[in-house]
Amino acid sequence: MTSLNTKQKVMDAARSLFYTKGYNGTSVRDIAAKAKVNVSLISYHFKNKQGLLEYMMIHYFESYIELLESVQQEEKEHSSRELLRRMIEVIIHYKQTNYQFTCFIHRELTLDNVLVREMMVTYLAKEKYLLFGVFKRSLQTLGLKNLQINYYYIQFKGMLMTPFLMPYEMREHVSFDQSHDYFMKQYSNSIINWLEYIYNTNQKPGFKQSIM
Amino acid sequence: MTSLNTKQKVMDAARSLFYTKGYNGTSVRDIAAKAKVNVSLISYHFKNKQGLLEYMMIHYFESYIELLESVQQEEKEHSSRELLRRMIEVIIHYKQTNYQFTCFIHRELTLDNVLVREMMVTYLAKEKYLLFGVFKRSLQTLGLKNLQINYYYIQFKGMLMTPFLMPYEMREHVSFDQSHDYFMKQYSNSIINWLEYIYNTNQKPGFKQSIM
Repeated sequence: MTSLNTKQKVMDAARSLFYTKGYNGTSVRDIAAKAKVNVSLISYHFKNKQGLLEYMMIHYFESYIELLESVQQEEKEHSSRELLRRMIEVIIHYKQTNYQFTCFIHRELTLDNVLVREMMVTYLAKEKYLLFGVFKRSLQTLGLKNLQINYYYIQFKGMLMTPFLMPYEMREHVSFDQSHDYFMKQYSNSIINWLEYIYNTNQKPGFKQSIM
Repeated sequence: MTSLNTKQKVMDAARSLFYTKGYNGTSVRDIAAKAKVNVSLISYHFKNKQGLLEYMMIHYFESYIELLESVQQEEKEHSSRELLRRMIEVIIHYKQTNYQFTCFIHRELTLDNVLVREMMVTYLAKEKYLLFGVFKRSLQTLGLKNLQINYYYIQFKGMLMTPFLMPYEMREHVSFDQSHDYFMKQYSNSIINWLEYIYNTNQKPGFKQSIM
């Protein structure tokens, strides 16, 4: 077994165990057993469980930020509304493609510990710069107050997270396969529709509307 | 110290520790130390950590369901839209009043274990009956398809949970005291406005609109 294979196997096992049992509910032994590797190999590659989690989180967030940056660069010619729409699609796609780890990360981020704070400072600051930046610009043309924009942003971020924080409701109400393309398309559209609602209801009378 | 006092102290300590460190990250010893009671008293009242959690969860959900039921009974004379609006206010108020435990419960419900499944079967089935029932009726008059209603419900449930699942974003973007009445009012209104938008955009031309 190559080193790359081992690392991948360990991460796959950890992803699935963290998702169902949580970080604290999972031991290195559990991971080794599920990955069918020796515990010592986990120590060799990741030092310990914390090291493994850090590695996986960095991997997840690096790709996520890269995606957001690439959207922003590709689409320089577009309006902030189009850019935002594109970002929504890309984010939902990324989260859905990494379904289990996304669920786990969103759960983990509600905790208050050193690793979470580090991730916040590093990656969520970048996300804020990229995503909130575009979001704000797309609403500022409406002349909204900052507090109002912040409220909408909370709702917006909530919508991006929701499907990954309510597994039971998802299973019950959207009863097809979670990884299905149909879900991503439908769900992204439902957020885009919500944005349209904000643009429309905050439109000043006589203010010419830019097309979303 | 009376028995009631001890129970309350233990629950208060557990609530705060579960919130910051998670269930698995908190030991009975931690709880005893924070509550300034002897570990044996926790065993006496709740058997163990699992028993304590069950007791707290049942307590939380019983009151929650009771609230929803009382809204439904008080307001029999009202339309489903008015009923739904009232439920939104009551739910946000309850969640905000029990802020730490609400955050903890929403996090815990993303896990897959026996206790969570039991809570689901018992309380979330009741919530579904009460809340989804009203939600569905309020949208059915518009002639929407079931799948469409389910998608809206996912967004709706997400909006009810969001403030309690993103503590960092809340702190950053809504920078006043979490327990403030102003937040509850503003946030409830933002959900009600979103519903009004759905009612309006799905309104068939010529269909007489009932006032929300």
